[in-house]
Amino acid sequence: MTYFLDKIREQQPLIHNITNLVVTNFTANGLYALGASPVMANAREEVEEMASIANALVLNIGTLTKEQVEAMIIAGKAANKAGIPVVLDPVGAGATTFRTKSAQTILDQVKVSIIRGNAGEIANLAGVSAEVKGVDASGDFDMEELLQVAYEQLHIPLAITGALDFVTDGKDKAIISNGHPLLTKVTGAGCLLSSVVAAFLAVEKETFKAATRAISCYGIAAEEAASKASLPGDFQVELLNQLYAISEDVLKSKEKILVSRLGSGHA
Amino acid sequence: MTYFLDKIREQQPLIHNITNLVVTNFTANGLYALGASPVMANAREEVEEMASIANALVLNIGTLTKEQVEAMIIAGKAANKAGIPVVLDPVGAGATTFRTKSAQTILDQVKVSIIRGNAGEIANLAGVSAEVKGVDASGDFDMEELLQVAYEQLHIPLAITGALDFVTDGKDKAIISNGHPLLTKVTGAGCLLSSVVAAFLAVEKETFKAATRAISCYGIAAEEAASKASLPGDFQVELLNQLYAISEDVLKSKEKILVSRLGSGHA
Amino acid sequence: MTYFLDKIREQQPLIHNITNLVVTNFTANGLYALGASPVMANAREEVEEMASIANALVLNIGTLTKEQVEAMIIAGKAANKAGIPVVLDPVGAGATTFRTKSAQTILDQVKVSIIRGNAGEIANLAGVSAEVKGVDASGDFDMEELLQVAYEQLHIPLAITGALDFVTDGKDKAIISNGHPLLTKVTGAGCLLSSVVAAFLAVEKETFKAATRAISCYGIAAEEAASKASLPGDFQVELLNQLYAISEDVLKSKEKILVSRLGSGHA
Repeated sequence: MTYFLDKIREQQPLIHNITNLVVTNFTANGLYALGASPVMANAREEVEEMASIANALVLNIGTLTKEQVEAMIIAGKAANKAGIPVVLDPVGAGATTFRTKSAQTILDQVKVSIIRGNAGEIANLAGVSAEVKGVDASGDFDMEELLQVAYEQLHIPLAITGALDFVTDGKDKAIISNGHPLLTKVTGAGCLLSSVVAAFLAVEKETFKAATRAISCYGIAAEEAASKASLPGDFQVELLNQLYAISEDVLKSKEKILVSRLGSGHA
Repeated sequence: MTYFLDKIREQQPLIHNITNLVVTNFTANGLYALGASPVMANAREEVEEMASIANALVLNIGTLTKEQVEAMIIAGKAANKAGIPVVLDPVGAGATTFRTKSAQTILDQVKVSIIRGNAGEIANLAGVSAEVKGVDASGDFDMEELLQVAYEQLHIPLAITGALDFVTDGKDKAIISNGHPLLTKVTGAGCLLSSVVAAFLAVEKETFKAATRAISCYGIAAEEAASKASLPGDFQVELLNQLYAISEDVLKSKEKILVSRLGSGHA
Repeated sequence: MTYFLDKIREQQPLIHNITNLVVTNFTANGLYALGASPVMANAREEVEEMASIANALVLNIGTLTKEQVEAMIIAGKAANKAGIPVVLDPVGAGATTFRTKSAQTILDQVKVSIIRGNAGEIANLAGVSAEVKGVDASGDFDMEELLQVAYEQLHIPLAITGALDFVTDGKDKAIISNGHPLLTKVTGAGCLLSSVVAAFLAVEKETFKAATRAISCYGIAAEEAASKASLPGDFQVELLNQLYAISEDVLKSKEKILVSRLGSGHA
């Protein structure tokens, strides 16, 4: 059994992030801490070339402009051509028409390996009615129902994260119960997770396996961080420490992943 | 007597920030720590819709472009229409003609609830001669005179912050002596304060009361942070911790606000 | 003998940074910690005016757009006219054609005081074949040979930093062995160094002396930080602390600079 972490540290995959203005620094530091090699590049003039030499691409719509949507599509097509995985993080989809439509435009033109978002974002993308307030999810969802319905609409592997995390590739379903509530007090915690998923996908072709392990790994790093830091400033720093310090042995002993068939009812 | 802090934590108001590239992350983390819900969105395509669902809007001109001025005016008008408070932070007004003029254009087209800046910025906006060096205030001002003269020019509630902080709504004047010099060693400390003022305004309609309490609360969080951290890296982290940990009881015991009538002479 | 640090703290030079989206906050905080006064401004509408009042200018191409190249050239010409030093950080030169060409365009139109980059970036700029993977250097270089060959091509003072750091002004050569490997785990550590070099150049006209001392100072701050923090989250915070806490006495006792003539063979 492999946890892919040592593989990331050996291969140091280059993760090309086209992401929002708020989280660039934290995302880059998180990827360095994990052992990956981040690059941020979002000009239409260079994203094709950058995506072509990368090992995975992250498209995050957190502070979108018209120009950035164009750059994401150029980069996404280059990634598809190069055969590298593409992670879409539809930050705030549903909050504004521009975000929802932009995410749909990207999905129309780019083959996305997995979408990672919260319940509200995924529900909006899938056309399931949901109230999205800003970039935070709200409302109560039957998460397993949402996972199934959204997959049926989108036909793309999904990771819906929140108090519990859910992953599906249309066949299997994983419920991951690692993680910590302090993650909701750090801006970009979800965005960094999307980039961590990309790092795992860069070293492991099976999307379901890679995404599930990535989310569990990130959740365990958060648990470790929360055991040392109870306030959000400290926790943010400690999360970077723990992404660096965490080992496959720790993952092995703390992993909480429950796998079943999608549509097999509540686990 | 209320300190509005519990109200922010209960209501988690959505604060829409159109702010500069330097402070997006720190501002979002500061608002989360305080208990508010930040959103950053600055594309002309979506700011109207985002401001319409927000509980307050912050316009910060720290790294302005022509496009961002347009987005700020669109968002500002939407905020005015929705009846939510608008905070203007005229970062570096006076340092370049573009900043001064852009701030004035915003003031011409948007009804601003309060302007929060340092002495140099406010003086420049009000046409009082002042030397502004980059984004830091310099020169010696008679602060109380500046407060009165600037209000007479601008007819907008003002918060002029520095070693001491001054607030007026044209009738009353508050002098707040909470705070700590280490704030001047952290980039975006003033910008975050503007967003904290917006969070207080989102839960309390009386601008003078809300702004005064916001500035005192932020200053006390800085005092608490400085009691635990004497170096700027640590202090920045600790400020986030203390914005999260602070309680209304602490505010009650440490608040240093002196209120008098504007124009009543030196307090 | 002077270490320029006290001079920076006395004069608080205004450093105008046109830099990438990832490192704005960290760069500004690092410059504040050191004692300088940072300003970020990148709109074509204001960079000329801002550069004219600054004491040094930093051009960093880490997340370039066409508009930013134009702004850099406008600012660079204003800096040349005002006679203030200009530091170029060619982040990721070689990774994409757009970056390499943009760096060359800047060099064609702006008189640059010094280029600070890693071996891969400098090699690419100088037309020495080198493999650049993302924004990190790779490949093995004979650093002293690279320094000499690159200078012969570019005729601009160079600082090539890595495990060891090399500086030349075409006459002298310095090898600096201060620093710590944890710097490679913090995003923007190199970018901040470029801005630190600019702060030293702002207070000392002799480029070779100023750059050499700047790089040694930064390396010693990193050593001090690493003696207190062994994980990357902590180290990033501690580096800011140590840039603030460091004194000329510490520099004097820990400085590791070896100066010889360029072309005099291996030191």
